[in-house]
Amino acid sequence: MASNSFGNIFRITTWGESHGPAIGVVIDGCPAGFRIDTQQLQQDVCNRSPGNNKLTSKRKEPDKIEILSGIFNGETTGTPISILIWNQDQDSSKYEPIKDLYRPGHANFTYLEKYKIFDYRGGGRSSGRETACRVAAGAIAKQILATQGIKLKAYIRSIGSITASGNWDINHLLENTQQSAVLCPDEIATKQITQQIIDARSTGDSLGGVVECCASFMPTGLGDPIYEKLEAKLASAMLSIPASKGFEIGSGFNATTSSGYDNNDTFTLKDNKVSLTSNNSGGVLGGISTGEDLIFKVAFKPTSSIFKQQDTVDTKGNKTTLNLPTGSRHDPCIAIRAVFVVEAMTALVLLDSYLANKLVTLK
Amino acid sequence: MASNSFGNIFRITTWGESHGPAIGVVIDGCPAGFRIDTQQLQQDVCNRSPGNNKLTSKRKEPDKIEILSGIFNGETTGTPISILIWNQDQDSSKYEPIKDLYRPGHANFTYLEKYKIFDYRGGGRSSGRETACRVAAGAIAKQILATQGIKLKAYIRSIGSITASGNWDINHLLENTQQSAVLCPDEIATKQITQQIIDARSTGDSLGGVVECCASFMPTGLGDPIYEKLEAKLASAMLSIPASKGFEIGSGFNATTSSGYDNNDTFTLKDNKVSLTSNNSGGVLGGISTGEDLIFKVAFKPTSSIFKQQDTVDTKGNKTTLNLPTGSRHDPCIAIRAVFVVEAMTALVLLDSYLANKLVTLK
Amino acid sequence: MASNSFGNIFRITTWGESHGPAIGVVIDGCPAGFRIDTQQLQQDVCNRSPGNNKLTSKRKEPDKIEILSGIFNGETTGTPISILIWNQDQDSSKYEPIKDLYRPGHANFTYLEKYKIFDYRGGGRSSGRETACRVAAGAIAKQILATQGIKLKAYIRSIGSITASGNWDINHLLENTQQSAVLCPDEIATKQITQQIIDARSTGDSLGGVVECCASFMPTGLGDPIYEKLEAKLASAMLSIPASKGFEIGSGFNATTSSGYDNNDTFTLKDNKVSLTSNNSGGVLGGISTGEDLIFKVAFKPTSSIFKQQDTVDTKGNKTTLNLPTGSRHDPCIAIRAVFVVEAMTALVLLDSYLANKLVTLK
Amino acid sequence: MASNSFGNIFRITTWGESHGPAIGVVIDGCPAGFRIDTQQLQQDVCNRSPGNNKLTSKRKEPDKIEILSGIFNGETTGTPISILIWNQDQDSSKYEPIKDLYRPGHANFTYLEKYKIFDYRGGGRSSGRETACRVAAGAIAKQILATQGIKLKAYIRSIGSITASGNWDINHLLENTQQSAVLCPDEIATKQITQQIIDARSTGDSLGGVVECCASFMPTGLGDPIYEKLEAKLASAMLSIPASKGFEIGSGFNATTSSGYDNNDTFTLKDNKVSLTSNNSGGVLGGISTGEDLIFKVAFKPTSSIFKQQDTVDTKGNKTTLNLPTGSRHDPCIAIRAVFVVEAMTALVLLDSYLANKLVTLK
Repeated sequence: MASNSFGNIFRITTWGESHGPAIGVVIDGCPAGFRIDTQQLQQDVCNRSPGNNKLTSKRKEPDKIEILSGIFNGETTGTPISILIWNQDQDSSKYEPIKDLYRPGHANFTYLEKYKIFDYRGGGRSSGRETACRVAAGAIAKQILATQGIKLKAYIRSIGSITASGNWDINHLLENTQQSAVLCPDEIATKQITQQIIDARSTGDSLGGVVECCASFMPTGLGDPIYEKLEAKLASAMLSIPASKGFEIGSGFNATTSSGYDNNDTFTLKDNKVSLTSNNSGGVLGGISTGEDLIFKVAFKPTSSIFKQQDTVDTKGNKTTLNLPTGSRHDPCIAIRAVFVVEAMTALVLLDSYLANKLVTLK
Repeated sequence: MASNSFGNIFRITTWGESHGPAIGVVIDGCPAGFRIDTQQLQQDVCNRSPGNNKLTSKRKEPDKIEILSGIFNGETTGTPISILIWNQDQDSSKYEPIKDLYRPGHANFTYLEKYKIFDYRGGGRSSGRETACRVAAGAIAKQILATQGIKLKAYIRSIGSITASGNWDINHLLENTQQSAVLCPDEIATKQITQQIIDARSTGDSLGGVVECCASFMPTGLGDPIYEKLEAKLASAMLSIPASKGFEIGSGFNATTSSGYDNNDTFTLKDNKVSLTSNNSGGVLGGISTGEDLIFKVAFKPTSSIFKQQDTVDTKGNKTTLNLPTGSRHDPCIAIRAVFVVEAMTALVLLDSYLANKLVTLK
Repeated sequence: MASNSFGNIFRITTWGESHGPAIGVVIDGCPAGFRIDTQQLQQDVCNRSPGNNKLTSKRKEPDKIEILSGIFNGETTGTPISILIWNQDQDSSKYEPIKDLYRPGHANFTYLEKYKIFDYRGGGRSSGRETACRVAAGAIAKQILATQGIKLKAYIRSIGSITASGNWDINHLLENTQQSAVLCPDEIATKQITQQIIDARSTGDSLGGVVECCASFMPTGLGDPIYEKLEAKLASAMLSIPASKGFEIGSGFNATTSSGYDNNDTFTLKDNKVSLTSNNSGGVLGGISTGEDLIFKVAFKPTSSIFKQQDTVDTKGNKTTLNLPTGSRHDPCIAIRAVFVVEAMTALVLLDSYLANKLVTLK
Repeated sequence: MASNSFGNIFRITTWGESHGPAIGVVIDGCPAGFRIDTQQLQQDVCNRSPGNNKLTSKRKEPDKIEILSGIFNGETTGTPISILIWNQDQDSSKYEPIKDLYRPGHANFTYLEKYKIFDYRGGGRSSGRETACRVAAGAIAKQILATQGIKLKAYIRSIGSITASGNWDINHLLENTQQSAVLCPDEIATKQITQQIIDARSTGDSLGGVVECCASFMPTGLGDPIYEKLEAKLASAMLSIPASKGFEIGSGFNATTSSGYDNNDTFTLKDNKVSLTSNNSGGVLGGISTGEDLIFKVAFKPTSSIFKQQDTVDTKGNKTTLNLPTGSRHDPCIAIRAVFVVEAMTALVLLDSYLANKLVTLK
């Protein structure tokens, strides 16, 4: 079953294995006539790459993108945009000793059950490396959304036991997130989280976290009723990210312990425009954007690859233990790099919904 | 944009407004040769109907289904199954006085922003009434899944401040859920929740809750990598249900405060079969089912329609207040009836994934 | 596999068997705010119905449509439009004696091979009756296209050995087709065809024919490159009509015996607008509309149901002969009623392409 | 609008411009566990390439494929197969002088109307070069179909005024087509066609032709009713090929002048199996394969790029004439190379239908 595409109108298809020759994405349905800032696009891809941060994996991938089609004289032409990233710095030999062991928290067991064959090197297709392609496509989506005035930013809300407090507007987020080593707009939390990650890494263990995303200057009307609700598309996008385990929008799970009176956002007028006095709905009503900020959270489990010994079974049916080779490079907290993926997927959902919204009338 | 269909292979399309002449669903892609228990199908639809429970809305809808195609001599033929339910007992006059008021927590504001026209009677297309069609389609999916040995059940995990404790296997759930007035398999919690709902209703307010769903006897291999992961499809399905605000699978948001070592499910052998020693993953790894129970939760906000006065704005741009007509019938806690919808949508996702899994090989 | 839907944006799903209780169509993705002329819609459906023409089948079906959703105060709301037609006048008893015989030219053999079960009454799902639903959906598409200035008309180009000569503009076609008993805008050909059909019917045999369709006042830009070319979508639409065996656009198969110099349409200026000096291309270049008239032909085989004895085999594997019961009602030339279906499918393709073309830019 | 994908289950997405850095295809939905003969795959791609035949274009493109993902240890893994072909030997300077001229029979006018921007070099995205990607994907589909016993072959039925006579079985076609300089299994016709093409080329003109395709050892049951009929999918596939203008299956347009009695294929028994005594239906009834040979024809117009002067208009709105630069390389008859594309697209349709047919039951 074809399952490597995302989006109805602005549609991406990703391909490639972690330790194959390359990975890539084809973007189909991009409107014509947009000038793409390829430097910014490259920068977005680099940001997600490991190695540019001492708290993430030490694998060093320059992740240089090559744009092979769809752009002519700097502008999109309406034809598919193919972006390719050659894999480098992959050393598959490390995976040889453990290739027959089911890895706790990993997909090698389920891929083998499903396909009877698995490119185990570096996690193959199930590796987080695939998300570099999403970030590339999302970077283009973000640039197009920006021409329509829509801005968005993802960031860390919590890691392990440390939760950043405060609510920030989009400009604060855009200015203060990237400079945090853990992509958290709160300076104090950044320090605490950093220490916590260093501690976890020193014991060979890992941490989880919550990524939050905010989109501002939203138009009303994005999202389509019943099965293409904006929150349904977002939920699907977020749960497609490796290691994600949950999604909530607006007041989310907290809404379940609130009352209707407290949780309802009442309507008022602001500058003669209808607006909401609170945003428990997170920017959507009935699956369609209200014009308020879109706000949601995504839960990421702790990185599955840890340096502690774990019980497991091998593919021949013997009980055994798994010890990751010490040279392996794994993020102690995958949630941090996931911030870029959450942001990219949000951009893809928003642009797709923005385009779909043009179909409501024939004007 | 066509947005009223769900599923790739076993594909449903629903139609109809709350106070229009009828609602219905077309199921396309149903395998041939299945004997449908139409009495059970009718029972499933009735279970969701209001009026069969003193804690849900008093609107009395018999919701008698008519099967208009796709079944011949009691068996599915592989052609579309069209199911229709005539609307009865709808009294649109109650909506006349408030038809120009934006209703807090409701979709009439966003529908009007998007389409410039809205069938406001009873919530029109945005009404929860649409979910009766999902329950009908899901009932068929459940029957087909049962022939493959897969059983599933949704139930209330919490309402407001009351959370049911305990973990139950599928047989306990199947036997003990339906008899609870609030669809909670825990007797003590049932009593507490019941009282809490009665209290909320007496003040004109409403409550939210968490619906949990469990599928057992799962085969491995369901779900397709990257964008059609089982949890991504489930998340999309759940966030498409009216009033839902969140989704989490397995340890979900709790995973974010755990460690990799604690959260990883290690592998072991049980009856010479590979199995997991815990189920923090909730039955999926890398988007593909592990064979363990599939377990996830869905957050539902408190019912938006309450009998307390709320500030709002009308469609002409005047500030005003909304008072629902006292005769209106609204559930004090929509999460309870949502149990049936969660279960139906789960069945649709599972059957779709089960069928998709046949495409992995040509055998 | 879901296969009963057509269209990407303006998407229809049809359901129903010939002798089931009803047939119907759900239209999803219809833009909001269109006032539908339901009388004209009903008239279009009636035109396709048998019994309103002495040369077509004598089965008398009023085919009264019921619109069950999606229209409020006379206007489309953007929600699915469900249209239902109750089946009447069906007498299934005539099919009992032949229910176990494979019928030459019919689908009962292949449906049974595929599904192992078949609702044989009146041809079940494979009956041409399904096309009434296409005509209903196409009628709405035509009305919407008309608001954008696009007009279209299908008509008979040839029946058996008689070919109408002449090329007519859209206004002539709109004014002169319907009044011909065989839907041919050429009076002389109409007479010859009429006689030919009467002759064929008197011998219990049947005739084939070619339906041509013309769309005028076409904008440039409709159709999407590579796999959603306008001619590819049209070809798919036409070959989905029962009894169709071929499609050609512009000079079609004749182009294969022409030369590049003769077949190329050169460009010129007309009223300061780029136009083509001929229309061998039939209104498309590279899959995208040129602004010239869209012209194509569809081949229909002779009606398979004839009143001559034919050799066949029964489902138990015995050689036998098939004699249709004399009271059965079948068109001696199905191409005539197919005219309405060709027109409807063309409208669906054009509206879908028109909507898709809005996605080329974000303006 | 995403329009560069083909297929529902075995789904290809192609990308790339004629004179961009590369072209490629991503195959999503390929079943796992197939050993791919990459040498045969490369050979298929080379066969389509220009330069390996003195009657086709002299452009010399080695068209060496690179497989970048989806195959591990020689076998498909179920993940996307990405195939890339670097463009070589492209000299865009030849297109500079004519870049502002609308080219008769070409897509540059319609692309510019639609997108306002066009990569004119070598025809950009509208170039036949894109079909190399289809041939690569089709080669894999053919190999998989062969494991299921299905064989297919496309060939020239006619070029200009010369039509090959005879009907050949699949083995004759497989053995005798490739050795003909014009891919025609008839030796006499091959000679006549060859001379005709040499003559046309000497005058700077071009020829059209009819490609026929035959698939043998077909199972019954391929194709899905109503809108995914096998012939509808084939028609769409064929009309998506550049320069195609028509499609007919079985007796096709000839059926329109036949009678029902003559055109119906009667049923009989052959080796105790139901079979048809003739094959006017071309291997399908009601959109589903009968098990007889699948036979259809595709009309290709004469190559649009000719070396005769033609009237045209430039993008600034001036009348002018077009003279292709003498060094340009264009096939005098594009139908010949189209044979490989017809065959590839047929393989894609058949494999997609074969996979879809697995969904009819749950066995």
